[in-house]
Amino acid sequence: MTTQVIVLNGGSSSGKSGIVRCLQAVLPDPWPALGTDTLVDAMPASLQASDGGIEFAADGGVTVGPAFRTLEAAWIEGVAAMARAGARVVVDEVFLSGADSQRRRHKALGGLRVLWVGVRCDGAVAAGREVARGDRIAGMAAAQAEVVHRGVVYDLEVDTTRSEAMECARTIAVHVT
Amino acid sequence: MTTQVIVLNGGSSSGKSGIVRCLQAVLPDPWPALGTDTLVDAMPASLQASDGGIEFAADGGVTVGPAFRTLEAAWIEGVAAMARAGARVVVDEVFLSGADSQRRRHKALGGLRVLWVGVRCDGAVAAGREVARGDRIAGMAAAQAEVVHRGVVYDLEVDTTRSEAMECARTIAVHVT
Amino acid sequence: MTTQVIVLNGGSSSGKSGIVRCLQAVLPDPWPALGTDTLVDAMPASLQASDGGIEFAADGGVTVGPAFRTLEAAWIEGVAAMARAGARVVVDEVFLSGADSQRRRHKALGGLRVLWVGVRCDGAVAAGREVARGDRIAGMAAAQAEVVHRGVVYDLEVDTTRSEAMECARTIAVHVT
Amino acid sequence: MTTQVIVLNGGSSSGKSGIVRCLQAVLPDPWPALGTDTLVDAMPASLQASDGGIEFAADGGVTVGPAFRTLEAAWIEGVAAMARAGARVVVDEVFLSGADSQRRRHKALGGLRVLWVGVRCDGAVAAGREVARGDRIAGMAAAQAEVVHRGVVYDLEVDTTRSEAMECARTIAVHVT
Repeated sequence: MTTQVIVLNGGSSSGKSGIVRCLQAVLPDPWPALGTDTLVDAMPASLQASDGGIEFAADGGVTVGPAFRTLEAAWIEGVAAMARAGARVVVDEVFLSGADSQRRRHKALGGLRVLWVGVRCDGAVAAGREVARGDRIAGMAAAQAEVVHRGVVYDLEVDTTRSEAMECARTIAVHVT
Repeated sequence: MTTQVIVLNGGSSSGKSGIVRCLQAVLPDPWPALGTDTLVDAMPASLQASDGGIEFAADGGVTVGPAFRTLEAAWIEGVAAMARAGARVVVDEVFLSGADSQRRRHKALGGLRVLWVGVRCDGAVAAGREVARGDRIAGMAAAQAEVVHRGVVYDLEVDTTRSEAMECARTIAVHVT
Repeated sequence: MTTQVIVLNGGSSSGKSGIVRCLQAVLPDPWPALGTDTLVDAMPASLQASDGGIEFAADGGVTVGPAFRTLEAAWIEGVAAMARAGARVVVDEVFLSGADSQRRRHKALGGLRVLWVGVRCDGAVAAGREVARGDRIAGMAAAQAEVVHRGVVYDLEVDTTRSEAMECARTIAVHVT
Repeated sequence: MTTQVIVLNGGSSSGKSGIVRCLQAVLPDPWPALGTDTLVDAMPASLQASDGGIEFAADGGVTVGPAFRTLEAAWIEGVAAMARAGARVVVDEVFLSGADSQRRRHKALGGLRVLWVGVRCDGAVAAGREVARGDRIAGMAAAQAEVVHRGVVYDLEVDTTRSEAMECARTIAVHVT
């Protein structure tokens, strides 16, 4: 049975995007990559400064309001429809609500063959990489390192603390059928 | 009857993205913005250098192969599903095949209330703006200025040759119901 | 006598960067482009959140502290040395202190043949373009439109309110000797 | 005696930029960061497609012509003048000509207290990170990994193959006086 969607879940600066690009390079089929960043970039600037939208606090905390949630739900339906229409899609996400985030995606992706992948990274190491990147609010990496995995069930997990993105991608690729 | 999708079609450097951001600012609801650039960015690097993918020639010509077309079709289904799930979506596109591109979208967006907007810009002016942007292959603006509108039917058209993005956005916003 | 440095001064979203890229395209020699953005990007993140650094307020106001000023002064000396070493350099700047900003540059660029260019743009139009760009803090364009020109003396001025970047570049190029 | 300039030399995707941002975070003074990327970005587009400019071949090879060399020499004079004017500057470079590149910088930086740092990374690991970044031409990392260090003399060397950017930055910071 063919894998239709790969979902990568991990905290900020855990190395998801790098793994996604390596996956796109090692998998024989062309897999478009979508994710939380795609959705956030698509949002109007106004939603990033309002009560109902998404807020990035100076300490790295991220708060998501009802208006953002509603659009996110529709977005996940869109990704599911894209996969049902025949595209194989790799999605990288930050499950801010842990098991609850997974449950919502599980429901929307119903009937599709999904590979659930946890991307772990030691919080202190991720915090250092956050400084090295220079384009993220300090504190997000540490704040999200553990919480996004709470109660989430995976088909496999990779850990970027000591493994390169390419190594992780090759490990995942073996599970793509 | 409520507008569910706004489709903006225009050549490269005609000013679509600027209009989209102004639309997001002037429309009262939050409209996520997706488009050709989102899809191209999502594609694996390999698809940008293969026979079946998308190729950007040195003279500004763009060729799209069957592998890209297949994923694009699935992508449009995804956008339609997102709108059907309740999100109002603004999409900016480059109809490389003119009327044929519209026909494909028309079919996928069936049953949704779509506002079709043509974004015109004089080819020579767009070519100058292409140089000013500095991030596009020279020649795309001139090559696409006319051809993307061939046979396409619009609800309204705006022209950025002498109108600011904000002005065009306000004109469009009046037609959003 | 050969022009060694072109200094463009104008408010945020007045269209300086676009003119610079068009200038680079129309001038026969290769002119490296440096400017305020280059310096701000080079600064440590810490200097963008400290008392002595540079602060971008939510209302578009920009405050520059002594630590930033000191590094900026050294930066201008660097640009002057680059020009004295034989490179022809185009610089785009935001003279937050108007005539005072020019006086400091005038002193550092002593002995060099400088073409001083004012880049004007109607404040309301620039504010609209700021929304269309989507990558600047709202309010900077309006706040800076007039104040950066206060008491500044130019060799020529261009106005992007109704002229394209390429047109402005051609006008400036005529004055480059 | 106070360190005035830190020069980091390493191949593409060896992790220089990450180390620079960590250095800016851990060093108590504000150190502006300049480097090869700053200069390449400042260059006119025309110089990236001409015989005398800089060419990035499809296989990752980089060729630098006389026009680029001339401007680069002036650029180094500019960095030196900036340091002499009192700014402490961290520079990240790719010594395409190895010892010869260092000799030219050594001459321009005469009289300044420079800390020369080699940034090593195993070629295969750097090649994997190049894929993970997704914004570099494939092959540059492997092509440059060894050659940029040929004959270059360092005050200290760090290796990102198994060390995080933050760790490398802390090691370097100890040598900054």
